[in-house]
Amino acid sequence: MEPLIRHIHHQLHLTTEEQQQVIRHFTRINVAKKAIILKEGSYCRDLFFVEKGCLRLYFIDEKGREQITHFAIENWWLTDYLAFDTANTAAFSIQAVENCTLLQISREQLDNLTQAVPLMDRYFRLNLQRAFGAAQRRIMMMYEKSKEDYFYEFNEKHPEFVQRVPQYMLASFLGLTPEYLSELRKKLR
Amino acid sequence: MEPLIRHIHHQLHLTTEEQQQVIRHFTRINVAKKAIILKEGSYCRDLFFVEKGCLRLYFIDEKGREQITHFAIENWWLTDYLAFDTANTAAFSIQAVENCTLLQISREQLDNLTQAVPLMDRYFRLNLQRAFGAAQRRIMMMYEKSKEDYFYEFNEKHPEFVQRVPQYMLASFLGLTPEYLSELRKKLR
Repeated sequence: MEPLIRHIHHQLHLTTEEQQQVIRHFTRINVAKKAIILKEGSYCRDLFFVEKGCLRLYFIDEKGREQITHFAIENWWLTDYLAFDTANTAAFSIQAVENCTLLQISREQLDNLTQAVPLMDRYFRLNLQRAFGAAQRRIMMMYEKSKEDYFYEFNEKHPEFVQRVPQYMLASFLGLTPEYLSELRKKLR
Repeated sequence: MEPLIRHIHHQLHLTTEEQQQVIRHFTRINVAKKAIILKEGSYCRDLFFVEKGCLRLYFIDEKGREQITHFAIENWWLTDYLAFDTANTAAFSIQAVENCTLLQISREQLDNLTQAVPLMDRYFRLNLQRAFGAAQRRIMMMYEKSKEDYFYEFNEKHPEFVQRVPQYMLASFLGLTPEYLSELRKKLR
């Protein structure tokens, strides 16, 4: 079964006909490691579902450094949601951290899809509810925790992920220097 | 027309019959200023829509201080989404900043509502898409901006709001001391 259909079926049931309609609205793309699939300042037309691989969302800060704020691995959705929602230019870029297989859907196609298969509105609602809930907790952590505590907590929750992505990217995401992250990891061992 | 129905109609059209079904699934409650409608550690059963008034979402940090992370005014939805989604205990509390008129809906009633009026899944999807997009930008700001810059930007975007809520609450939300916020406001004048 398609990874997306499997992911949907964790939450609700689609008929075979509906499954085919869902798949028909997406374009499957293979992108090589380091490929940029959304560029800050360009129009954000698409939402991406990761079938295989890993994406990072980042922006260029005032000092000209890349700052990663989100990753997406298998079964995660990613885009600059505000730009996608308002058909506006992106404030973030998205790059492939590994070779990826992605499902891509434009805003118009997403509208067509939810007209054709209204249950997909529910699927996205439930996903976004969880994603927004996670963002609320992350904002809480950013107020409360030191960056060190955030690393320890993140490492405990997502150990495979900490192993998987390049360390300088993880450092950027955590707001640490790569050297300091390396020290913290040594302490953990 | 009911404020909620007006808000829905900005995004999609409901028939008169559907509008009545929507309203039937909610309970309207009046809560006095300072009333707690969700308490950290208790089960989070409800989602709230603000018809009138202002709510704040906050947690108690490691030093025992209240830390505000979200506000909701007219036409905003508020809950601890992760706790609501997983029918779990809340990590946040919600308190009325002013006397409020709210629409309240439980997780079960929300399920019933979206079964009865599937278009409501679309309404919530579009709202959550925007809310999550705003959270992505806020996380960006938290990485990038100094707290001073965040205040100036927030003040420019939401001037009425900065006037409306008590200054010590605004200071908590912005991560500033009330004294420092007062200095920044003087500089602005």
